Amino acid sequence: MALTVVGSIAFDSVKTPFGERDRMLGGAAVHFSLAASFFTEVRPVGPVGEDFGAEHFEVLEGRGVRVDDIERVPGGESFFWRGRYEYDLNVAHTEDTQLGVFGEFEPKLSAAAEAADTLFLANIQPDLQRQVRAQCGAARFSALDSMNLWIDTAKDSLLAAIAEVECVVLNDAEIRQLTGEPNLARAARALMEHGPRAVVAKQGEYGAALFTGDSFFALPGMPLEDVRDPTGAGDSFAGGFLGFLDGHDGELDEASLRRAMGYGTVLASFNVERFGTERVAALSRDEIEERFRQLHGMTQFEPLPVV
Amino acid sequence: MALTVVGSIAFDSVKTPFGERDRMLGGAAVHFSLAASFFTEVRPVGPVGEDFGAEHFEVLEGRGVRVDDIERVPGGESFFWRGRYEYDLNVAHTEDTQLGVFGEFEPKLSAAAEAADTLFLANIQPDLQRQVRAQCGAARFSALDSMNLWIDTAKDSLLAAIAEVECVVLNDAEIRQLTGEPNLARAARALMEHGPRAVVAKQGEYGAALFTGDSFFALPGMPLEDVRDPTGAGDSFAGGFLGFLDGHDGELDEASLRRAMGYGTVLASFNVERFGTERVAALSRDEIEERFRQLHGMTQFEPLPVV
Repeated sequence: MALTVVGSIAFDSVKTPFGERDRMLGGAAVHFSLAASFFTEVRPVGPVGEDFGAEHFEVLEGRGVRVDDIERVPGGESFFWRGRYEYDLNVAHTEDTQLGVFGEFEPKLSAAAEAADTLFLANIQPDLQRQVRAQCGAARFSALDSMNLWIDTAKDSLLAAIAEVECVVLNDAEIRQLTGEPNLARAARALMEHGPRAVVAKQGEYGAALFTGDSFFALPGMPLEDVRDPTGAGDSFAGGFLGFLDGHDGELDEASLRRAMGYGTVLASFNVERFGTERVAALSRDEIEERFRQLHGMTQFEPLPVV
Repeated sequence: MALTVVGSIAFDSVKTPFGERDRMLGGAAVHFSLAASFFTEVRPVGPVGEDFGAEHFEVLEGRGVRVDDIERVPGGESFFWRGRYEYDLNVAHTEDTQLGVFGEFEPKLSAAAEAADTLFLANIQPDLQRQVRAQCGAARFSALDSMNLWIDTAKDSLLAAIAEVECVVLNDAEIRQLTGEPNLARAARALMEHGPRAVVAKQGEYGAALFTGDSFFALPGMPLEDVRDPTGAGDSFAGGFLGFLDGHDGELDEASLRRAMGYGTVLASFNVERFGTERVAALSRDEIEERFRQLHGMTQFEPLPVV
């Protein structure tokens, strides 16, 4: 199995009440790739500048990520984001965004990237997402993320992109905004009418919900006592979710999707315990399985006895 | 088994994007009692005015609620609340509050009310909660709710009341405010250090979480497509939760508390589908069990196979 992700590869400067970091490795495709790397072979596609050095490639290669489709642009600068969080870690305050080489990004996929069984279109301009989706014709399962910027400025393109994927992974507020429907259950059904068979609503510390057909499933976030930096949590969630789906042997049925939601939740929970990629890059599969078992124990209750 | 609840018995005028009602039956003790009535004998304690008529008593008696401890004050007016909700139904905007007879409320419990096995101290002044707790010496399980007003104006009294109950049922924002700890897991542990063996964090549409000892359990809210009026949802949750605990045969162990969380979730979900008490007053136990099974199906996933 093989998983391709297209999205930002970036440097992030982040300040939270629990510390700060300057120009650490980040970006949606990075967080996603590290999380997915525990389950399958993952190949990020995206541009970086000359400021992206061997030490940054090594973080990815250290987790077995295939970096051949990361394009290093001569004379360019990598995407840069600076932001801060207050005690309400659900809200990011952006202080600076420098697109750098990402501003003229034209996705060029290698044959290996195009042959992926699973595809994740991280948050980039929706027409670029459609280009990549068209190139990855072999993918049996594709998913996309987006953001309020594209809902505001390129909604028709975004809806066209959504019509071409099997799964949407968005924050619950984005699902409401995109559909103009304040009720999340109705909003998710409305999105599925555009084509996807699954809608994942990310809900920050409250967890995540999965809508499929007439079915609904939800998991709480892990009750962490040490949360330092939420940057990348949503991408780590998507990486655990799609990484598990790509790597597992069975069908892409409801049981698999639910288990994948569990791995997404677990990877997101590790992500936020340290800054940037620090925790996930140093993680082990055993730690993931241990926390998956904890999550299972936190969500199960006995069925009713027959009355 | 028998359950006593002390709290407001009121009239509510409510406007939401989905309709409005004038002076409908409401109040914490009313919503709680109706929800709990499906599981056990419940006895609300509180004052009403002369405006509280036979038709209002009949709503409670129609569900088998024991109304002998509702004190009708001659010449008095019942507690009145007017509020509205926008599309974000998690936020109530209060437009008017008239305490009426509730302003001079001195709890007077009958012998039957004092003999309760289970006690719920709904949101009233914390010193009154302590008086009632002291009168109900036989209760094997007691819980309290509160609000930001008492955290701001009577925090020491509230903490003293919390030290005397087995369980706290609060909104997650209130738990954070009360403890001054923005991390919910830490905040819940801090509350348990005051005495309670369980802390329930109500999270609006996101569901509810249960902290006990070192254990954690959480349930999502039901994914309702028709939500009309959230007023009383938290009290209906508490009524389903404590009603089940009082009425069931077994121990008050983790398994029972988790199942009780399920019934709380179910009763809250019915509460919000119509205005005020309209839905819960017309509910059947079969409908509750059916939705409990749905909730169970929405939260379970397969344990890991042995790797």
